[in-house]
Amino acid sequence: MKNVTKILLVVSLFSLLSCGESAKKTSEHETVKVAAGVWKLTSGTPEKVNLLSELSVTPKLEAIDAMGEAELPVTMDEISVKQRDGKTYIRFPLEKDEKIFGLGLNFKTVEQRGRIMRLHVDHYAGKDDGRTHAPVPFFVSSRGYGALINSARYIDVWAGTSVRKDSENPPVVRDRNTDKDWEAQPYSDNLEFLVPADGVEIILFAGDDMLDVVRRFNLYNGGGVLPPKWGLGFWHRVPTLYSDKEVLAEVADFERHDFPLSVIGLEPGWMSRAYPCTYEWDSTRFPKPKEFVGALNDKNIKTNVWINGYVSPDGELYSKIYPYTGSHTVWCGIVPDYSMKEAQDILSAHFRKHQLDIGVSGYKMDENDGFDSWLWPDVAEFPSGNSAEQMRQIYGALMQNLTTKMYRDENKRTYGLVRSSNAGTSSFPYVLYNDYYNHRDFITALINSSFIGVLWTPEVRSSKNSEDWLRRMQTVCFSPVAMLNAWADGTKPWSFPDVTEEVNDVAKLRMRLIPYLYTAFADYAFYGTPPMRAMNLEKGYFAADQITKKEFDGTDNPYAMAVRREVKDQFMVGDNLLVAPLFAGDKERTVVLPEGKWYDFYTGELAGESEVITVNGDTKRIPVYVKDGGIVPLWPAEAKTDGRKYPLEIRHYGFKPSTYELYDDDGETYDYEKGDYVRITLKVDVDADGNKSGSVTVPDGKTAWSYDGYDFRFMTK
Amino acid sequence: MKNVTKILLVVSLFSLLSCGESAKKTSEHETVKVAAGVWKLTSGTPEKVNLLSELSVTPKLEAIDAMGEAELPVTMDEISVKQRDGKTYIRFPLEKDEKIFGLGLNFKTVEQRGRIMRLHVDHYAGKDDGRTHAPVPFFVSSRGYGALINSARYIDVWAGTSVRKDSENPPVVRDRNTDKDWEAQPYSDNLEFLVPADGVEIILFAGDDMLDVVRRFNLYNGGGVLPPKWGLGFWHRVPTLYSDKEVLAEVADFERHDFPLSVIGLEPGWMSRAYPCTYEWDSTRFPKPKEFVGALNDKNIKTNVWINGYVSPDGELYSKIYPYTGSHTVWCGIVPDYSMKEAQDILSAHFRKHQLDIGVSGYKMDENDGFDSWLWPDVAEFPSGNSAEQMRQIYGALMQNLTTKMYRDENKRTYGLVRSSNAGTSSFPYVLYNDYYNHRDFITALINSSFIGVLWTPEVRSSKNSEDWLRRMQTVCFSPVAMLNAWADGTKPWSFPDVTEEVNDVAKLRMRLIPYLYTAFADYAFYGTPPMRAMNLEKGYFAADQITKKEFDGTDNPYAMAVRREVKDQFMVGDNLLVAPLFAGDKERTVVLPEGKWYDFYTGELAGESEVITVNGDTKRIPVYVKDGGIVPLWPAEAKTDGRKYPLEIRHYGFKPSTYELYDDDGETYDYEKGDYVRITLKVDVDADGNKSGSVTVPDGKTAWSYDGYDFRFMTK
Repeated sequence: MKNVTKILLVVSLFSLLSCGESAKKTSEHETVKVAAGVWKLTSGTPEKVNLLSELSVTPKLEAIDAMGEAELPVTMDEISVKQRDGKTYIRFPLEKDEKIFGLGLNFKTVEQRGRIMRLHVDHYAGKDDGRTHAPVPFFVSSRGYGALINSARYIDVWAGTSVRKDSENPPVVRDRNTDKDWEAQPYSDNLEFLVPADGVEIILFAGDDMLDVVRRFNLYNGGGVLPPKWGLGFWHRVPTLYSDKEVLAEVADFERHDFPLSVIGLEPGWMSRAYPCTYEWDSTRFPKPKEFVGALNDKNIKTNVWINGYVSPDGELYSKIYPYTGSHTVWCGIVPDYSMKEAQDILSAHFRKHQLDIGVSGYKMDENDGFDSWLWPDVAEFPSGNSAEQMRQIYGALMQNLTTKMYRDENKRTYGLVRSSNAGTSSFPYVLYNDYYNHRDFITALINSSFIGVLWTPEVRSSKNSEDWLRRMQTVCFSPVAMLNAWADGTKPWSFPDVTEEVNDVAKLRMRLIPYLYTAFADYAFYGTPPMRAMNLEKGYFAADQITKKEFDGTDNPYAMAVRREVKDQFMVGDNLLVAPLFAGDKERTVVLPEGKWYDFYTGELAGESEVITVNGDTKRIPVYVKDGGIVPLWPAEAKTDGRKYPLEIRHYGFKPSTYELYDDDGETYDYEKGDYVRITLKVDVDADGNKSGSVTVPDGKTAWSYDGYDFRFMTK
Repeated sequence: MKNVTKILLVVSLFSLLSCGESAKKTSEHETVKVAAGVWKLTSGTPEKVNLLSELSVTPKLEAIDAMGEAELPVTMDEISVKQRDGKTYIRFPLEKDEKIFGLGLNFKTVEQRGRIMRLHVDHYAGKDDGRTHAPVPFFVSSRGYGALINSARYIDVWAGTSVRKDSENPPVVRDRNTDKDWEAQPYSDNLEFLVPADGVEIILFAGDDMLDVVRRFNLYNGGGVLPPKWGLGFWHRVPTLYSDKEVLAEVADFERHDFPLSVIGLEPGWMSRAYPCTYEWDSTRFPKPKEFVGALNDKNIKTNVWINGYVSPDGELYSKIYPYTGSHTVWCGIVPDYSMKEAQDILSAHFRKHQLDIGVSGYKMDENDGFDSWLWPDVAEFPSGNSAEQMRQIYGALMQNLTTKMYRDENKRTYGLVRSSNAGTSSFPYVLYNDYYNHRDFITALINSSFIGVLWTPEVRSSKNSEDWLRRMQTVCFSPVAMLNAWADGTKPWSFPDVTEEVNDVAKLRMRLIPYLYTAFADYAFYGTPPMRAMNLEKGYFAADQITKKEFDGTDNPYAMAVRREVKDQFMVGDNLLVAPLFAGDKERTVVLPEGKWYDFYTGELAGESEVITVNGDTKRIPVYVKDGGIVPLWPAEAKTDGRKYPLEIRHYGFKPSTYELYDDDGETYDYEKGDYVRITLKVDVDADGNKSGSVTVPDGKTAWSYDGYDFRFMTK
């Protein structure tokens, strides 16, 4: 690592309360600077295995340094880290109005202050209690810093709930008998963690604002992923027992309906055995897999295949991988120890033979999340000696690591789906999904994914009615993977006839947006900026939470607990778009517009300025707003991810002069990492009379791969 | 300890899977016999603090030995215990039809095989996931043995869910694509535990049947509690801000309504400050506490006072206890370290001064369970050096221990309520309760309490309607504490006028049953037999579980998970009564009658024989059945817990000749432990013609304290 300077050695001596006998080890923590605004704090004896140690990821320190210096708003001796009882105790101070974000892929809440969690890989089960698909132990504070607790253990978090008796900002003591202001949860100035290990490494990130903190975090994780361009098209997963012929008929049906299609996803039925798996093609449903995949590739339609991690005794992999599997089975399949080189080599060879070498574009890696009832138990042993707990926390990341590396070794980008992840995976071409299927909560997860360096798709399965269908289709088209998953129900995009036209419209809009989305993802890869983002990461955004004090009820609410309402249903896409989905059944919704003027994406008309607006629920299209001066490059509606060049429509909104750095590259290799890409400057000038003019600057010696012809369209009159 | 013979030294050598580097310590476990059918297994380095180490409890080894020898159905080398990664891993084998009971106070399920839990003291929140008021790490197997994992840590349990790849009884491998018998949860032959400590002590209990196992467990915990006789009367908790005058008026109202009353419970308002607490009387509401309590005692009505464990800065206790409190506050109150002698002495002195010495009979010790949001976090430190985790697991038990000892030192029995408990508390005079308030689940908890050595009351608060009110009143009268808790809603027993008569009837029945209940509790104390018991502990009981395979649904039930239905709404009280509560809204219910004939308690008529009967939901009284030959001694309806002698009605049901060992003592001291009690033999003979005759035998030199005159009544004609 470059620029590693030891800047600070803090010896924290904690005065202990009294006279007990047991271990009271006080520890030092040592802090070294890693890059501009990034420090590594070490306390006790950190474990050999952590969230990053097993992954082939290199921090993008130069990109971080290019952001310039940043100071931490807390001093090192305000952070307390010590070992006791074989565990590591961590405390960060909280200020009165400080907000805490991140701490795993939560589905119900955006702000996490006030929550208690145990960060634990699991299927999300309806509560933001830390059990989730990506329990990333990283928080972002509104004071402009964040920290990754880099441990592959189940980490307990008390985010502003615990009160220390030596607090300098203690809550007011009240008598519940007589004081109406008594609260069940008194004010807390602590953000506390418990790591069940005798030492830990903590990575601290500073930033001018929360977005800068997140960017440093993502860059430290290797930068964000840049998907292949076809990954941003429309995906369709077919019913699980479809044969090759049925798939090809489905593809023809998409053509007949003039519906975009970039990726076909095959579900378990493509395999000779599933739950547990062989990773070999079923010879009855897919007698000639290479020809089948080749035929789709010829149509510029990629093939993605479902797998889970558990190996069937019926395939050729079983006996080879057996020595490198854990003590327990999952659905009767043995569980490869993906952290062992031997296992990695055997798995890679098998995956290459049956997928990569015949043209399969990537994987949907299911069931690496949980839940407890079918995953290996924490008593399981793995031959690497890694604990079952550690394996659970990183299994999804390890599967991503292996498959990413396999494609990277061929200089091919892949893009796929995964059910579990953790820190260190920002650069991996995988998007999280699950079975939970609550539309609103899916959007909250999309928002939260932006704090923790992962991607999330609110995939569409069947719907209760056509309104729900349309609303879900609309939001998925503004997510990292625009996908219909018909594995179980056999739906098609046109399954709800009364909204077929609107569904088609939004799928085409998705295709049109690819230049804009691809640039947003390039910003993720190069600068760490999440392509889909929480409003809280947007400058000028402010929405006050509403705290509702609930009525006391002796049997139903005996502590009269208060409830917090927050804005968790709108988000940013790329630099300029604010998306405010509609949900089935809603008569209307409100949208919080941050500072400045915002314009309707479709009409260019002024929508509002630094205010809360109301949208009618009958609105057919998904509400999207563009900030003043926002530039949005669009492909034509007929564009496909077929490697061809398309003319570009360059929309400009409002009256602010502005520039936009359009990104392009070959769309499918890693050559961009060697500089083989272009940034085209799109510029709009506005003169004193409000007249607008646009210019396009392509750097000397470069050309675009996918754009041909530029047409400015000034949307606001 | 007597009779400790080292009988077995098993060295378990676990073959490890492969070649990893990390710690792979294999351990020996050593097993010593403690009493007839009880063994202590030790593995690794058990912690100094465990569930029993901090309690003043002596195992009743002589009573266990008196049960005779019993063999374990598993061999010591079938039990695997080893240390790895700083934790202890435990496996017990499971047989095909083996059932597992216990494992904490569960509210939804009786049989635990198929469950995954983390045993953790907490308020029960609607899921049997191990978070509960008494997460006792003790299981009972239908094979006739049980084990206590004696650790004060959060213990993870996989009760027949995990599958080892080296299993000798592996599940069948199936292909989910094509095999309709594929199951989300394959068959498992493991009962596995993970204890986060580098060693553990396990107490193994054998038995001819599960009841014998439970009896040994309870006797090992010091035997069951024998409450003072007044504790079995009717309890009423008044609204929290009631003054002394209002309480006395309420008592007069009970007299006016001819409603039994043995205990008045005062809620937080009796105290000068609550949440946090002073444990001192509020001088405005109770200016003369000693006189107030004395006036109630004169009426043979005991006073029980609410407390929680958190100390207010406003009282005289605060500065004294401060040095012996934890690092974190709860509701702004400091948290005494009840495991320290210094803290115990200070607390006892304070409690004596303000409660015991002025005649208060005992406590309701609230809020020592959770939930996480307001309890101390696991990062808290305690001056004893005990970890926050250990303190959480035993805090309720420590509070019970201290207050029990305080009363015992005065040779006075107390009886009260507590919100958390654990192993080792069977002999403490405390009954668990909570805020959960689901009537059916309350009964399931009552059933489950009998496996794990704790008591549970389905206390009554307000109700949605009079039917619900009556049904709740009926079941609570067959529980360890018959109590109405009007702290928040101010209800009285006669608050629902259309059922006032029936409510009065069942409260009086409760009073009449005291001789029977008191004997049942004596059997708990002397023989370890739970007074209220699961049907599964009853000989001749068999009810098949119904497994319903659920429909597959791609979005709502993607794994087609099955659901098990079991009988969890009827229970035994004492030797002879089977109680089958009715629940509001039910048109009818079924009752499973074990082997033999069963008779209606009220009429003596035959109800059925080894069969499932149906009871109409309109039935006014709570269905109660008596086994063939069952003897039930009853006080008269006007009886009170006033120390007077009452004539006894001795009911006999059916046609079997039988005997009943009626128990009696002074009802309020511990003199019975020195032999100052009587067992009166009630005997019914039946001649060849079916003519019945009864006889009463009082041992020489003994007299009963509470019974005067015996009248046999043969209920079945």
